[in-house]
Amino acid sequence: MIERLISEIKKKNAPIVAGLDPMLKFVPEYIQKKAFSEFGETLEGAGEAIWQFNKAIVDAINDLIPAVKPQIAMYEQFGVPGVIAFKKTVDYCRKKGLLVIGDIKRGDIGSTSEAYAIGHLGKTPVGLTRISAFDEDFATVNPYLGSDGVNPFVKVCEEEDKGIFVLVKTSNRSSGEFQDRLLSDADNRPLYEIVGEKVNEWGKELIHEGYSDVGAVVGATYPEVGKALRKIMPSSYILVPGYGAQGGSGKDLKHFFNEDGLGAIVNSSRGIIAAYTQEKYAKYGENNFEEAARRAVIDMKEDINANI
Amino acid sequence: MIERLISEIKKKNAPIVAGLDPMLKFVPEYIQKKAFSEFGETLEGAGEAIWQFNKAIVDAINDLIPAVKPQIAMYEQFGVPGVIAFKKTVDYCRKKGLLVIGDIKRGDIGSTSEAYAIGHLGKTPVGLTRISAFDEDFATVNPYLGSDGVNPFVKVCEEEDKGIFVLVKTSNRSSGEFQDRLLSDADNRPLYEIVGEKVNEWGKELIHEGYSDVGAVVGATYPEVGKALRKIMPSSYILVPGYGAQGGSGKDLKHFFNEDGLGAIVNSSRGIIAAYTQEKYAKYGENNFEEAARRAVIDMKEDINANI
Repeated sequence: MIERLISEIKKKNAPIVAGLDPMLKFVPEYIQKKAFSEFGETLEGAGEAIWQFNKAIVDAINDLIPAVKPQIAMYEQFGVPGVIAFKKTVDYCRKKGLLVIGDIKRGDIGSTSEAYAIGHLGKTPVGLTRISAFDEDFATVNPYLGSDGVNPFVKVCEEEDKGIFVLVKTSNRSSGEFQDRLLSDADNRPLYEIVGEKVNEWGKELIHEGYSDVGAVVGATYPEVGKALRKIMPSSYILVPGYGAQGGSGKDLKHFFNEDGLGAIVNSSRGIIAAYTQEKYAKYGENNFEEAARRAVIDMKEDINANI
Repeated sequence: MIERLISEIKKKNAPIVAGLDPMLKFVPEYIQKKAFSEFGETLEGAGEAIWQFNKAIVDAINDLIPAVKPQIAMYEQFGVPGVIAFKKTVDYCRKKGLLVIGDIKRGDIGSTSEAYAIGHLGKTPVGLTRISAFDEDFATVNPYLGSDGVNPFVKVCEEEDKGIFVLVKTSNRSSGEFQDRLLSDADNRPLYEIVGEKVNEWGKELIHEGYSDVGAVVGATYPEVGKALRKIMPSSYILVPGYGAQGGSGKDLKHFFNEDGLGAIVNSSRGIIAAYTQEKYAKYGENNFEEAARRAVIDMKEDINANI
């Protein structure tokens, strides 16, 4: 799967992923009103509003980017109707030729992790059939439970030609509380480096065109950590959150890439989908939120390509 | 919320939670056939089969236990229809007077973790209303992202009178890969102890009747670790997976409890719901799977109460 992502990144000259995290406060009022007039102020109404919002964004930017990353929490908060909107979004994006990175951060053990893996990336056995349930292309995975939690995903990646990004060093302020701890049983190196080494190990049999189907998440907000992890995981694609709204900028990103100009894909969520709420793009107004999103993608692409 | 759990544990004299992890292979063939005859071998058919299975189990055991723990992965693998079955199960269990621990192991950052927290434990704002989406009583939370990931859950616990169990030391074989690492910046103590100290800190404002709404997950398979963590987190309820199928037994559990006989609740999943597949309960046969489950709960209760 990683070779498909690389090919799309090259084709669109954009190592960029748009985070589809449709909080209701980003959805223009006229879209919300329309949805609520049909379904009421209900979870169904909210699901309809975020789905219509996503659809317009995707229509406006799909030719510019290789992939989207829907954050499932933003859908799950609306219960079953939210999960329906998530599934519609996944299907629509794939139909539009986009790769879909499900930002699900799942992680459990044994048969439970297997259930997540087949549910999101593989096919679930039902009677004599096997059925794709959510059918994303990639998923993010939490490593806290160790190999027992990650290996079922690796297995599905191999069988179904899919990919994962394992959380190594996250972009948030408190990510260091556990991830940065220095390990006396590993020459005083930080935990995230040991997780990075494991990412290498988990992905070593799944390398295509120089990169593995098993990638890593490393936040743009920690460029020095990105530099260190880039060396530790030379064959892993790094999914980089934290650009834009969280404070990372283009010049912070250089070290996340390899010398071949590949190896990283940078996410922006509200920086794109809520661009119209920023001063810089305010002239578009909420009636042209999707054009603001398109402009934000073009600007982000320039910023990042100038710094690789 | 923890005082409600304690009260139910005392009332039923059972520090036990039944894990509702309905893998299709545990669902008797006649239930699957009936569901498939109505919905076909589809995700809807699978959702109906696991829901009917759960319902029968819950009807058979609800008077014996204080709480259930549906593992959401086992539902999510069936896509939207699986999530519908999850929600039906949550609602049905609560209607039957059971507390519901959503085993969701979510964990993200900031507004994303907040979305999970309100979606599973709180109320989601939609227009001028606030709506319960999944409405569990407790949820399990993954701590890898640090306080940024956990605090939004703590806030919802406080506002909505709910509870969480944070993963500290999981029951699986490879849990030590990261959780057991020794930290040179913490006197060579293992990571799980530091996470345990954080659990104390996160929960310190939410203590009712001696225990906090912020509990911890510690696997039955590591009794010595349970002993150490029991001392580190005196006010945290410990949710203990790994009993039965994963190898933990009653005598391993003594040290997870405090001297007041409280402080731990032990989960068994397949040991209860798939009891009829074990030699010990084979006489019940798949036609009486729910009676086998009931007998398994009674036996588990005896085993654990004899060892507290």
